Amino acid sequence: MEGDTLATMPAIVLSLSCPDRPGIVHSVTGVLASAGGNILESQQYGDIDTGQFFLRIEAEIPGTIGDLREPVDELADRFQGRIELAEKDRPLKTIIMASTTSHCLTDLLYEQRMGRLPIEVARVVSNHDKLRPIADFYEAPYTHIPFVKERREEAEAQLMEIVDETGAELIVLARYMQVLSPQLCKRMAGSIINIHHSFLPSFKGARPYQQAHDRGVKLIGATAHYVTEDLDEGPIIEQDVERVSHALSAPDLQAIGEDVERRVLARAVRWHAEDRVLRNGQRTVVFP
Amino acid sequence: MEGDTLATMPAIVLSLSCPDRPGIVHSVTGVLASAGGNILESQQYGDIDTGQFFLRIEAEIPGTIGDLREPVDELADRFQGRIELAEKDRPLKTIIMASTTSHCLTDLLYEQRMGRLPIEVARVVSNHDKLRPIADFYEAPYTHIPFVKERREEAEAQLMEIVDETGAELIVLARYMQVLSPQLCKRMAGSIINIHHSFLPSFKGARPYQQAHDRGVKLIGATAHYVTEDLDEGPIIEQDVERVSHALSAPDLQAIGEDVERRVLARAVRWHAEDRVLRNGQRTVVFP
Amino acid sequence: MEGDTLATMPAIVLSLSCPDRPGIVHSVTGVLASAGGNILESQQYGDIDTGQFFLRIEAEIPGTIGDLREPVDELADRFQGRIELAEKDRPLKTIIMASTTSHCLTDLLYEQRMGRLPIEVARVVSNHDKLRPIADFYEAPYTHIPFVKERREEAEAQLMEIVDETGAELIVLARYMQVLSPQLCKRMAGSIINIHHSFLPSFKGARPYQQAHDRGVKLIGATAHYVTEDLDEGPIIEQDVERVSHALSAPDLQAIGEDVERRVLARAVRWHAEDRVLRNGQRTVVFP
Amino acid sequence: MEGDTLATMPAIVLSLSCPDRPGIVHSVTGVLASAGGNILESQQYGDIDTGQFFLRIEAEIPGTIGDLREPVDELADRFQGRIELAEKDRPLKTIIMASTTSHCLTDLLYEQRMGRLPIEVARVVSNHDKLRPIADFYEAPYTHIPFVKERREEAEAQLMEIVDETGAELIVLARYMQVLSPQLCKRMAGSIINIHHSFLPSFKGARPYQQAHDRGVKLIGATAHYVTEDLDEGPIIEQDVERVSHALSAPDLQAIGEDVERRVLARAVRWHAEDRVLRNGQRTVVFP
Repeated sequence: MEGDTLATMPAIVLSLSCPDRPGIVHSVTGVLASAGGNILESQQYGDIDTGQFFLRIEAEIPGTIGDLREPVDELADRFQGRIELAEKDRPLKTIIMASTTSHCLTDLLYEQRMGRLPIEVARVVSNHDKLRPIADFYEAPYTHIPFVKERREEAEAQLMEIVDETGAELIVLARYMQVLSPQLCKRMAGSIINIHHSFLPSFKGARPYQQAHDRGVKLIGATAHYVTEDLDEGPIIEQDVERVSHALSAPDLQAIGEDVERRVLARAVRWHAEDRVLRNGQRTVVFP
Repeated sequence: MEGDTLATMPAIVLSLSCPDRPGIVHSVTGVLASAGGNILESQQYGDIDTGQFFLRIEAEIPGTIGDLREPVDELADRFQGRIELAEKDRPLKTIIMASTTSHCLTDLLYEQRMGRLPIEVARVVSNHDKLRPIADFYEAPYTHIPFVKERREEAEAQLMEIVDETGAELIVLARYMQVLSPQLCKRMAGSIINIHHSFLPSFKGARPYQQAHDRGVKLIGATAHYVTEDLDEGPIIEQDVERVSHALSAPDLQAIGEDVERRVLARAVRWHAEDRVLRNGQRTVVFP
Repeated sequence: MEGDTLATMPAIVLSLSCPDRPGIVHSVTGVLASAGGNILESQQYGDIDTGQFFLRIEAEIPGTIGDLREPVDELADRFQGRIELAEKDRPLKTIIMASTTSHCLTDLLYEQRMGRLPIEVARVVSNHDKLRPIADFYEAPYTHIPFVKERREEAEAQLMEIVDETGAELIVLARYMQVLSPQLCKRMAGSIINIHHSFLPSFKGARPYQQAHDRGVKLIGATAHYVTEDLDEGPIIEQDVERVSHALSAPDLQAIGEDVERRVLARAVRWHAEDRVLRNGQRTVVFP
Repeated sequence: MEGDTLATMPAIVLSLSCPDRPGIVHSVTGVLASAGGNILESQQYGDIDTGQFFLRIEAEIPGTIGDLREPVDELADRFQGRIELAEKDRPLKTIIMASTTSHCLTDLLYEQRMGRLPIEVARVVSNHDKLRPIADFYEAPYTHIPFVKERREEAEAQLMEIVDETGAELIVLARYMQVLSPQLCKRMAGSIINIHHSFLPSFKGARPYQQAHDRGVKLIGATAHYVTEDLDEGPIIEQDVERVSHALSAPDLQAIGEDVERRVLARAVRWHAEDRVLRNGQRTVVFP
């Protein structure tokens, strides 16, 4: 049934982006119908400006996801687009990177533990050793990669090794205060999420809460975005704000801001892991 | 194209609710594809608790909406459900009822004038004459129906006459302070929207801002809902809140609350007029 | 009584800013106590970064505001600061300037009419004639000053004449799309409020909703600020945001944004007119 | 200086509530001035309905808090009210009670550890043993008091012993699913804070998220309130909400709601511990 859940059937997520033209939805639902599938959830969006079409469908299928590969590949060819197929709720292998502030790391580990974040924490990587006890508590393996300027390449090589070894599909920068190399950004394009501690595009760069304080803004916020080589300019996934007053110091703003950061980052990671975020040039399509 | 707009093609909105079963989306998109239609927007929801399935599709079609009636009726039969077809952006004939406070009436007339509310204000009806100048300014016909307890039936008969005469499809109670008769509620079931000046189910009944003040709540809100015979219990369409402090008097709460009311009501009316609100028992499905 | 209201006593607002030092509050409350005054509301803030102290007191006094002038001037001398005295709820003579979009003008006139905005609309000034019917409806005098580039000085001279003639104490730029001359900005420094249609400092300059759309932000906002010669850089009074999604076009963002604008501007004007906004360098202290 | 901080001076918080009459602020600031004190922050509120006046002042004093006791007691006598004196940022001895859900407990311990919550966690008490590892991680002593219906008195006696032994000044019910006895409520009146998982007064009682789901509300919330013998009716300290849609199940609502709960509870506990919450009959005055 279109919206029902039979416990015995596996569920899949199909996400498509392609140039817009007639008949896409009918064709895709046709493939699912032929396979005996039932649509659970479906969202779509056609961007008039760019002519791109986006579709996300959750469906139950009687067989395995493999049965769909061939007809789905044919569809991708026909519509000259990209179609991804994934098992629903399959935990995404994830590396969480952090430096010394713990609020985002703690929150991600907690949400994962509570079963609300479909990720598997393959590794926590930090350029410090300070947050190890938190990882230990949540039984997440922790690797300390000291980051010394002269040996930056070495550090990045070690990180890439961890990516290979764990088969990581996602890197979350949970207040990791180092810039990743362009090579890593390229290699993991669309698979690195950063939390920026401001309401971008306001207050790019360093010390955003001090900047926000100096400008006297009345709301502060946070932005989760994909990392590109262009610092703080990657596609935005999610943003939120909190009201502040003149009486708050820059550290006060930071305390409030950190609570916004962890909420925004957790939402962005969950939506990404559930294949709810599709790229649309420098923007994102989010089907929450 | 699925998401594109060709100026020459009329657009339609199809909304469906029926018992859930496999193949609904594929069948509906099939009818549209056969008619040469292009899907612009599509949203669906399957309620696991009730087993009902809901679908809303915006599509362009090369011909007229009449061409779709027959195949759509067949679908409705097959799936034992309800399918509504409507021209997109066709202004809904609407009666706005108000008493003496003007904020909701003013806002609806303003939004309609600005082209953001697909309604045609067939009549403003009030049990007072106070708001006539506002209706005049927006060139909306105004009828004053005095409401005297002993002649209540007469007043309602006059209102029903206006409904017939104007062919009104929607009645908006924009802070209309009289209770409609069960007969009228029944006759226009699902087509009367009320704004209640509280965050329902809190503070039902009279003087909600005074009640909110007495209880010392820290947020006040408003609720737009369909009117049923069961006062303040109809399906909720939209709600919103605003933060308040201990220092505010009941009249202060009212001033802030009225701003919430007009926003909430305008959103509810727009979503209804765009066929974005579907009934699901005592609840609503909103595809915003 | 400190918090009570005796109908027969006039109420005043005292607002002070001066270098911080011990005993300020005790001295000020002493002057009020000597005059038989009762404090109704009091807020203060000491800025550790700048060493400035800010105080706002509402009080009832048995005599007239004139009786307080001398002791208050002495206080200002002693503390080398600024103290303003004003009758509470005295309507501030205000010029509202607008161009062709009506939402902010309509809202200000409506709020003023409802008794929620302690201003007297001395004149509506516009570089177009389009909004005259709205001003007429609210019985506000309207002056059309065409703005031609070559005769800009002439237009500004006409505006200054209106300022003189009406004794205007506040100019509100309610989506007025022309830049005021540096001379006017200087002359009315701290008395011109503008609504900027973005969440500053994001999206300064022209077409902010298009900019916001292109950047793919998930919230859009508005900023009310004092006008200085430095465009879009004046001290911020109030800001607010609304959530948006990828599916909204730039015009959709604009429609939502305009609702935020009018709320933010109305709040800023009310707080200013109630002497709740004090200047703190490039920032504001707001005692709401 | 009124708003300055000299590192060598201790800071105190004075909070007063008394029947309103002239001269209160001047008298209180006089006592502080005589002691050489400097006011850092001051907030006041006079309730016209009840005739009560509320004041909270933070000040630095050159000596010790003991020097102020006598003159402050005299003031309390004179104004027939209550004045509390406390060292600023003195950690409040707190017992946190929880059952099996961990989000609120985790958040409070985390905030305390980060230095943002001026409490000392004297004990974590639970009617289960499940949350012990979390308390261990944060090095908070944990006592498991099994709650068996027949031996309820025994359990409460054990709790009261812990209150005595630790000198606890505050009990936080961080999703503790048992009802406290009227005796304990009375004894700790005004010192027990509960988080209720709904936007009170909506959805009192059990399973509020299920109730919210059934009613089809569009926002869900949480309420932190003082515990009185009258279940769910104690004075509200703080509330907040989050937007939800028809597509969310009752468990989804719960997940979102729990995030609101922990934010609301942490704010309420911080404000209480900083003496920012004053009782005003069945309502609270909050000076945030």
